[in-house]
Amino acid sequence: MKLIITIISDQDNEPVSQALIGKGFRVTRIASTGGFFRRGSSTLMIGVNDEKVSEAIELIRDSVSAASDTSMPRATFFVLNVENFTKI
Amino acid sequence: MKLIITIISDQDNEPVSQALIGKGFRVTRIASTGGFFRRGSSTLMIGVNDEKVSEAIELIRDSVSAASDTSMPRATFFVLNVENFTKI
Amino acid sequence: MKLIITIISDQDNEPVSQALIGKGFRVTRIASTGGFFRRGSSTLMIGVNDEKVSEAIELIRDSVSAASDTSMPRATFFVLNVENFTKI
Repeated sequence: MKLIITIISDQDNEPVSQALIGKGFRVTRIASTGGFFRRGSSTLMIGVNDEKVSEAIELIRDSVSAASDTSMPRATFFVLNVENFTKI
Repeated sequence: MKLIITIISDQDNEPVSQALIGKGFRVTRIASTGGFFRRGSSTLMIGVNDEKVSEAIELIRDSVSAASDTSMPRATFFVLNVENFTKI
Repeated sequence: MKLIITIISDQDNEPVSQALIGKGFRVTRIASTGGFFRRGSSTLMIGVNDEKVSEAIELIRDSVSAASDTSMPRATFFVLNVENFTKI
């Protein structure tokens, strides 16, 4: 199990989340602020099985809008190993 | 040291946090939104020694309210390994 | 690559973030609440190359204000290993 933490612009929150949810991913969204330009950003946390990491990243890649400022990334991904995952 | 990231419903934030704090756990709370139903959720981060992970999870399990919608988990837990923990 | 998650008081958010950004670190800021005293806190996520972890922590240490309540930490750091880091 991996935890993908991805930081995207606010405007991409809705289409990205819907794309992920539509494919059965469970997404937790957190309002955040990007460091450079103080623009609003969204931080998404997505718990996925190891073999689904690429699919989730591809979905996000296909759902973010075109870059208006090419010096800024459209999405940043941190993939973390999850030692233990439990739901109750 | 582990970092427990747990996602619970908003209504459980207060009782769960109080139960953890009452037992000496340090909790950082973040407002979040669950993916499926857009309901408010709370994301808690709890740094714990390895041998305390089970105790923290049990405390949360005992503090969340009964599920009103049995198709939704009452709590989701990601346990991450912490390479380095420092306080100043 | 490491992900530093640091929890600081709200009042330190701005000077700490500016110090990090000034040195080229990229910071994502999230509003949070500390567990003990319910005071506002800020959670910063900073993705850094392994060899930059100490520099980032030193910068934060030098930028937080003096402790008004010496029983509370001024900053808490969790350093997590990042299995995969991608920007698009």
